[in-house]
Amino acid sequence: MIIMQSDATKEQIDAVVTEIKKYGLRADVSRGAFRTVIGLVGDESKVPFDRFAILPGVKEARMVETPYKLISREYAKLSEEESEDRVIKVGNVEIGGDEPVFMAGPCAVESKAQLFKIAERVKKAGANVLRGGIFKPRTSVHSFQGLGGGSQEEAREALSWLRKAGDNFEMPVVTEIRGEGQVDMVAEYVDIIQIGARNMYDQDLLTQVARKRKPILYKRHFGAGIEEFLSFTEYMVAEDNKDIILCERGILPLGKGRSYSRYTLDLTAVPAIQKETYLPIIVDPSHAAGRRDLVFSLSCAGIAAGACGLLIEVHHNPVEALVDGQQMITPDELADVISTCRKIRKAIGHRRNNG
Amino acid sequence: MIIMQSDATKEQIDAVVTEIKKYGLRADVSRGAFRTVIGLVGDESKVPFDRFAILPGVKEARMVETPYKLISREYAKLSEEESEDRVIKVGNVEIGGDEPVFMAGPCAVESKAQLFKIAERVKKAGANVLRGGIFKPRTSVHSFQGLGGGSQEEAREALSWLRKAGDNFEMPVVTEIRGEGQVDMVAEYVDIIQIGARNMYDQDLLTQVARKRKPILYKRHFGAGIEEFLSFTEYMVAEDNKDIILCERGILPLGKGRSYSRYTLDLTAVPAIQKETYLPIIVDPSHAAGRRDLVFSLSCAGIAAGACGLLIEVHHNPVEALVDGQQMITPDELADVISTCRKIRKAIGHRRNNG
Amino acid sequence: MIIMQSDATKEQIDAVVTEIKKYGLRADVSRGAFRTVIGLVGDESKVPFDRFAILPGVKEARMVETPYKLISREYAKLSEEESEDRVIKVGNVEIGGDEPVFMAGPCAVESKAQLFKIAERVKKAGANVLRGGIFKPRTSVHSFQGLGGGSQEEAREALSWLRKAGDNFEMPVVTEIRGEGQVDMVAEYVDIIQIGARNMYDQDLLTQVARKRKPILYKRHFGAGIEEFLSFTEYMVAEDNKDIILCERGILPLGKGRSYSRYTLDLTAVPAIQKETYLPIIVDPSHAAGRRDLVFSLSCAGIAAGACGLLIEVHHNPVEALVDGQQMITPDELADVISTCRKIRKAIGHRRNNG
Amino acid sequence: MIIMQSDATKEQIDAVVTEIKKYGLRADVSRGAFRTVIGLVGDESKVPFDRFAILPGVKEARMVETPYKLISREYAKLSEEESEDRVIKVGNVEIGGDEPVFMAGPCAVESKAQLFKIAERVKKAGANVLRGGIFKPRTSVHSFQGLGGGSQEEAREALSWLRKAGDNFEMPVVTEIRGEGQVDMVAEYVDIIQIGARNMYDQDLLTQVARKRKPILYKRHFGAGIEEFLSFTEYMVAEDNKDIILCERGILPLGKGRSYSRYTLDLTAVPAIQKETYLPIIVDPSHAAGRRDLVFSLSCAGIAAGACGLLIEVHHNPVEALVDGQQMITPDELADVISTCRKIRKAIGHRRNNG
Repeated sequence: MIIMQSDATKEQIDAVVTEIKKYGLRADVSRGAFRTVIGLVGDESKVPFDRFAILPGVKEARMVETPYKLISREYAKLSEEESEDRVIKVGNVEIGGDEPVFMAGPCAVESKAQLFKIAERVKKAGANVLRGGIFKPRTSVHSFQGLGGGSQEEAREALSWLRKAGDNFEMPVVTEIRGEGQVDMVAEYVDIIQIGARNMYDQDLLTQVARKRKPILYKRHFGAGIEEFLSFTEYMVAEDNKDIILCERGILPLGKGRSYSRYTLDLTAVPAIQKETYLPIIVDPSHAAGRRDLVFSLSCAGIAAGACGLLIEVHHNPVEALVDGQQMITPDELADVISTCRKIRKAIGHRRNNG
Repeated sequence: MIIMQSDATKEQIDAVVTEIKKYGLRADVSRGAFRTVIGLVGDESKVPFDRFAILPGVKEARMVETPYKLISREYAKLSEEESEDRVIKVGNVEIGGDEPVFMAGPCAVESKAQLFKIAERVKKAGANVLRGGIFKPRTSVHSFQGLGGGSQEEAREALSWLRKAGDNFEMPVVTEIRGEGQVDMVAEYVDIIQIGARNMYDQDLLTQVARKRKPILYKRHFGAGIEEFLSFTEYMVAEDNKDIILCERGILPLGKGRSYSRYTLDLTAVPAIQKETYLPIIVDPSHAAGRRDLVFSLSCAGIAAGACGLLIEVHHNPVEALVDGQQMITPDELADVISTCRKIRKAIGHRRNNG
Repeated sequence: MIIMQSDATKEQIDAVVTEIKKYGLRADVSRGAFRTVIGLVGDESKVPFDRFAILPGVKEARMVETPYKLISREYAKLSEEESEDRVIKVGNVEIGGDEPVFMAGPCAVESKAQLFKIAERVKKAGANVLRGGIFKPRTSVHSFQGLGGGSQEEAREALSWLRKAGDNFEMPVVTEIRGEGQVDMVAEYVDIIQIGARNMYDQDLLTQVARKRKPILYKRHFGAGIEEFLSFTEYMVAEDNKDIILCERGILPLGKGRSYSRYTLDLTAVPAIQKETYLPIIVDPSHAAGRRDLVFSLSCAGIAAGACGLLIEVHHNPVEALVDGQQMITPDELADVISTCRKIRKAIGHRRNNG
Repeated sequence: MIIMQSDATKEQIDAVVTEIKKYGLRADVSRGAFRTVIGLVGDESKVPFDRFAILPGVKEARMVETPYKLISREYAKLSEEESEDRVIKVGNVEIGGDEPVFMAGPCAVESKAQLFKIAERVKKAGANVLRGGIFKPRTSVHSFQGLGGGSQEEAREALSWLRKAGDNFEMPVVTEIRGEGQVDMVAEYVDIIQIGARNMYDQDLLTQVARKRKPILYKRHFGAGIEEFLSFTEYMVAEDNKDIILCERGILPLGKGRSYSRYTLDLTAVPAIQKETYLPIIVDPSHAAGRRDLVFSLSCAGIAAGACGLLIEVHHNPVEALVDGQQMITPDELADVISTCRKIRKAIGHRRNNG
């Protein structure tokens, strides 16, 4: 990390950036009100910081021994650029702002009719963003892989329904990609690209998605520590994309008979992460619970823990759903969740970094 | 389990109980409005249920293959006795009722003056029950073991301070016991006896405490599954003591760098347990977090998840505390927690079994 | 799954395969000595098995409700094709045969000289396969990403060193790929393609690697259950590549102070997995331990648990290594490990499915 | 910790001990060949080490900030007293010596005849110590609690059978106690007192058992970290009983479908613990596996990992057993385990601290 003097010129800053590139690294330049801080992106171990320290306009040059720094509040404070919580705007929706955001829709898109029916009803229930799975990551090769599991044309068609439903009911749309082969196609159709829990560690995929310059909904893997989660987030921000929406969706449960839900929702992580980074975090109670009757309580708890929003699976007729029917709630139940969560948010105030 | 006919006489019921005792088991008789259900306490595997089925007044006799039944909603429904949530009254306080309950006080009682000062301030902040540790379970034999770690006289003196502080500030008091040798003494002084997480599996201790006929605050072990937790709860209820307050206080975290708190608060367990049993459950955010700055968020999340109350460590001067100073909040912070949690409870309504 | 009559003709089998394809599924045809079994690859939920049951030559047609079947011993027994343990031949080496296999080499290839020096010494110590990391998955974007982290040319050059070192010292070579972009290039140079723990869930990558028709070294993710691990293995076998070498490399540890190693090596999984599948499994003690002084004991324990071999990180000068120096052993220590493990294998005999 | 000068007199040492007691602590005096080291047992935080440092004969006085020191190799090295592995002698058996030790017998003692039959057969199979459960810790109050679950007389009778079976077949005997009420009685009859996993944290119980001055078989709780396990061991050694046999019996598994055994045997802990302490450790494969067909492999792996012995549940007719039949092996299988493990031990040599 290189901190420039407050009166450093643009030429001096450019000279430092040029020098950094000679070592095979990239530079992340944060121009704050009072001074400029240049973060090095890449392996710092071979950088001779003492040589940088004597370049014109440089105040301080030193190695930062943390696996994530571009996203950290501490580092942001240095440049006074990002001392505030980051609010990500997608269409008319603000993620991380004063109001909690509700992303809702079916686990898997099954047909145009199903999608439009659900979109209409979640909108009416108060949802802000429409979700719908097209490329479904599945444990078994013998399970339904989503409409994206077929031909390219079928995948495109399903994506176009999602786009139209979003436009029709005035909600930005989000869908998950599962591999590098889907990145270009998905980026054409959606407003937010989701990287699921199982792909959390896929650093080549993270890099490619980040380059699309669209907001990313990034889920924590169920076995991933907070440090790992934030460190891998850094791979995207290193591509100069800071529109990352973090998502907690449950960690490994204690096991059979030990846990009565599919995963253990780690709500302790919510305030803990918000103290580390200025990026917003939301909660997915549906996958964590794996059962419909816990979704209300976990939603309320997530918002009370300080989450900026929820990602909830909704189906007008859960028992008929092709995937994950047991965890989807109805649009009416969603309306109850949303109105209660809005009251809870009001009770706690807007305290993302309440330390 | 034996279900009597709706017109079974007292004599018939008594005859069944006598017959059960012949097999070395005890009988838990639930007299409901419409019929009486007799639960067998002990090893049912050798009981000839077909012989019971033909006794006069018996409608049905069958083995129940669940590790807990006396505390389960399902079993309670049969006798229609306990179909409602159990509310435990201690002095003027109702645990499990319409209002959330706040148990607060220092981790360890250090002196009479310290205890009275904190008691006064937590009362003012809105707390209902006073907690204070005297027998401290500690990982290391080389750590301060609480005032109960010295002589019998010192232990009694510390217990009497707790009693007086409770009386003085009109709060029932709770303290933890750690071994069978403390049960009699502690029962003399306190209103609620706490069995801590590390003693959760100590079935001989559970039985002895239950026989004191006082309410018990029973914490889940950090490695214990829900089924285990409820099964061991059954050891106490089998002694005919149904005044058990369950407490979730965090499970094993993912580990160094993986978790940023001492434990992972399992809030998924809160609604999951409330669907299983009519006993109330509270949440301890202090031990779960192990850091002061997460207590507010975890408290709010706990109440939002449906907990009946909170157990919070408070100190007027946390940095000077002998034990766990890093996780105790101040009385002023407690007041903020309590007022916010009351609003949250109002927002969600009283939904212990919101299924 | 469709079981043909013992006298079913090729035409009848082909007709069934054609019919299966109509439903968008693929067919895995196992021709055994006595009968042919056709496994359906894909979503079986919409297949009308009763209609298949009446096709000529079909003895039985039914859905199999298991997430993995192509790799299971149970399913293999039906066709009597794979009732034996699978032995994978790579050059002169047999993986899963009577002798344990030792794959060794540096964590990261640093230079041609370093690689050749280590290759020579591990060969002399008794190793059978040479490993060397070129595309390194790293938690931090700010860490050294391996020689594959630079340009395509550098990556190719490092791969060519690995190829030459393997040829020179007569050992097949293995390296890890990290994303879909590396599959083609890596397949040109190596004998075995490694899919690391962090990519275990990356089903699009699994499919592409499997299509290269080369043996795959497939590591279990540290949070993955056995069922998940075997289910994702099925994605590769569904591409008709049965040369999969499974690898246990440690699961999530209990945490700071709770575990004294980086991960917990799950040796219980070794015999448990070998009872499920005919595929061979090896053990990686280096990543599990994360410390050099446990590698000997864990290696011995792995072989004693029934593993078919070991994957060990070796460096002639561990303290100078760029990556993971603290867990690499020296070639002399490797020689001790190999000779001891050979004796242990002799003591236990060759019992992969010792049930 | 206080290190005396090499020429310190007995009077000087006694004076230091007297001074220590004034602070309410106990002194653990280790007289080594070259110097004497005095460990303080209790809360060191209020001890003025600078005042101790100037007492006659004192070379160094300082606080040791580790939760365990009396059992650590590092501390033992200071006095050169315990630099060797501790070997615990029970009758003719040496635990922790050159030969591995095999403790075997039924999970639960069911009758005198059953116990004698199994004792005879395990002796013939090569076992050294006879185990048999009388007070069974059980998850459910509705399960068979062992013969110790009835009257005092029945418990004594079962204990006397165990004593007689041990004498008859010339094996020391071990049984588990579950609460403080059983300590006196059990100590009368057995050679080794077992404290089970569920009582690992019960510090009051540990203290009382340690005072019986008999060897203790001490099992790690399935959720306990290594540091916790060793710290609680220190409670017993602080009572001046160093005959503690540690036992690894499996930690929390990843969960349903994730693990195919009841627990995950943590064999990484075996060498890790042996590097920390001079106390011996054995492995219990039966409870870890929870299934008979994994016991052979886990036994071999345990010995290969460096364990000093095994604790195995054996029954002549497992399907008829009242408790845990699914995990008990037959005497013939035990003979196979023992002869194979002896060969493995020979292969690895006697390397308890192979660092």
